[in-house]
Amino acid sequence: MVNHSPDHPVAKRKIMAGEMEILCVGNELLIGKTLNTNAQWLSKHATALGIAVKRITVVADDVNEIANAVREVLQRKPQFVITTGGLGPTFDDKTLEGLAKALDRKLEINEKALKMVKEKYETYSRKKGTGTIKLTQPRIKMATIPQNTKPIPNPVGTAPGVQVDLEATILIALPGVPSEMEAIFEETMAPLLKQASGYRAFYEKSIYAEDVMESTLAPLIDRVMHNNPGVYVKSHPRGGENKPHMEIHMSTTARNTDKPEEKLQKTITQLSIAIEKIGGRVIVDKQTDA
Amino acid sequence: MVNHSPDHPVAKRKIMAGEMEILCVGNELLIGKTLNTNAQWLSKHATALGIAVKRITVVADDVNEIANAVREVLQRKPQFVITTGGLGPTFDDKTLEGLAKALDRKLEINEKALKMVKEKYETYSRKKGTGTIKLTQPRIKMATIPQNTKPIPNPVGTAPGVQVDLEATILIALPGVPSEMEAIFEETMAPLLKQASGYRAFYEKSIYAEDVMESTLAPLIDRVMHNNPGVYVKSHPRGGENKPHMEIHMSTTARNTDKPEEKLQKTITQLSIAIEKIGGRVIVDKQTDA
Repeated sequence: MVNHSPDHPVAKRKIMAGEMEILCVGNELLIGKTLNTNAQWLSKHATALGIAVKRITVVADDVNEIANAVREVLQRKPQFVITTGGLGPTFDDKTLEGLAKALDRKLEINEKALKMVKEKYETYSRKKGTGTIKLTQPRIKMATIPQNTKPIPNPVGTAPGVQVDLEATILIALPGVPSEMEAIFEETMAPLLKQASGYRAFYEKSIYAEDVMESTLAPLIDRVMHNNPGVYVKSHPRGGENKPHMEIHMSTTARNTDKPEEKLQKTITQLSIAIEKIGGRVIVDKQTDA
Repeated sequence: MVNHSPDHPVAKRKIMAGEMEILCVGNELLIGKTLNTNAQWLSKHATALGIAVKRITVVADDVNEIANAVREVLQRKPQFVITTGGLGPTFDDKTLEGLAKALDRKLEINEKALKMVKEKYETYSRKKGTGTIKLTQPRIKMATIPQNTKPIPNPVGTAPGVQVDLEATILIALPGVPSEMEAIFEETMAPLLKQASGYRAFYEKSIYAEDVMESTLAPLIDRVMHNNPGVYVKSHPRGGENKPHMEIHMSTTARNTDKPEEKLQKTITQLSIAIEKIGGRVIVDKQTDA
């Protein structure tokens, strides 16, 4: 984590507890070529910071598909939107064009963004000793962003991120290359999300049950959830209803001062007793706090 | 693959070439606990059968979230919708309730579905020698489906799939347990999708380029795509713009009689020559046809 200077794009914005949507752009996700690890990474990290991820959407490298999805997301007014992918130099990197269309703003070369891109290529060029670099059209494209949006420095890659501050929503467009996406998230978004969630965090634990079918477990979970407000309990069948091996996942989003770990432990104890009582076997596995 | 009897839920329905959306239901996907391998599996298999997957949406185990997402998907009128997850016996399995709400239909115990569920538990019980089974409320829940929809046999699990035939769209709700989802897809959906795509298939090949930055590659890809209509070319940077190692993925959806492999090979040759000409190194890797 870094300390932001006052003119950093997202510094010092006061935000209340919030919700987030994630919009992933890329044909490779829709043809099943690429497993969407970006969505999982972002969900996990935003959740860990106390944010509620409400929806993940995946669309193709197509201006209209992107623009429609952005419009729909913004209508739901989540406090944060992260898009991933489509910021690079090739013709099929269309996220900013889609974003511009959704916002009804023009695309324009942003001087700060151009400086970021130029400096990257100069560094590459210096390292290789290949002399002056050209700001070709594909390179200028990465600095061509919707009007009234801000470029975000990319600490490990070339294409800057883009931040759009709207009335209800902060939308941040991140690159699809995982290392670049993760670096910008950590540096720019994480401090913002922490503040927005009121420094809550996500706490979770799993236990495992054997010899109990999910359908038999269902009423026990109902009862335990009723007795432990704020704790969410969900069973995940791992072996099929026939040879039951069940992961039971308990989670809560809270401040550390609310003693979330104690709450989870109390839930685990109650559920374990109930499961053993009906002939199931409980395995209390390793702690998996986020 | 199986041959369907004439009264099989999806047999013999004549459908034209089509598009698909996938709707995944599950909190575990939105907190980043679970990687969405189901979406990848479905995308890959539908694409391989010549279907265009247009969008993937992930929502929480919440009736309103599900109902809203279903309504939105249906408004876009894809020919097929697959939902995954939320068909099980626990309180948080809410896909059918959300579906009923979106369709404005009541939920009712479906006799065919109840028979499917009952037979599963009788089989489990026989294998274990535990005598008669009870159709408890959580078990009956799995047979409680929206009016005027059809249960689909689940060859490897308990919860039946559900098929909804609408004017523009066939929606099929599949379980979230991967083995169950895959089995129902293979048995029930695959024959339907093949027919709908006119027996097209998806063909793909990748080559790898080194010592060329993505921004330098961009205009070459533009030109090659222009010269090879129907072939889609996309670069995937694997090492960052700085130490470039690029996967270049070429794909086309076509009938076998359209000689798709030849088309891809011609594209590869043209692009390889262009890359070598500007000082890049091309690695023609193993074939990766779907």
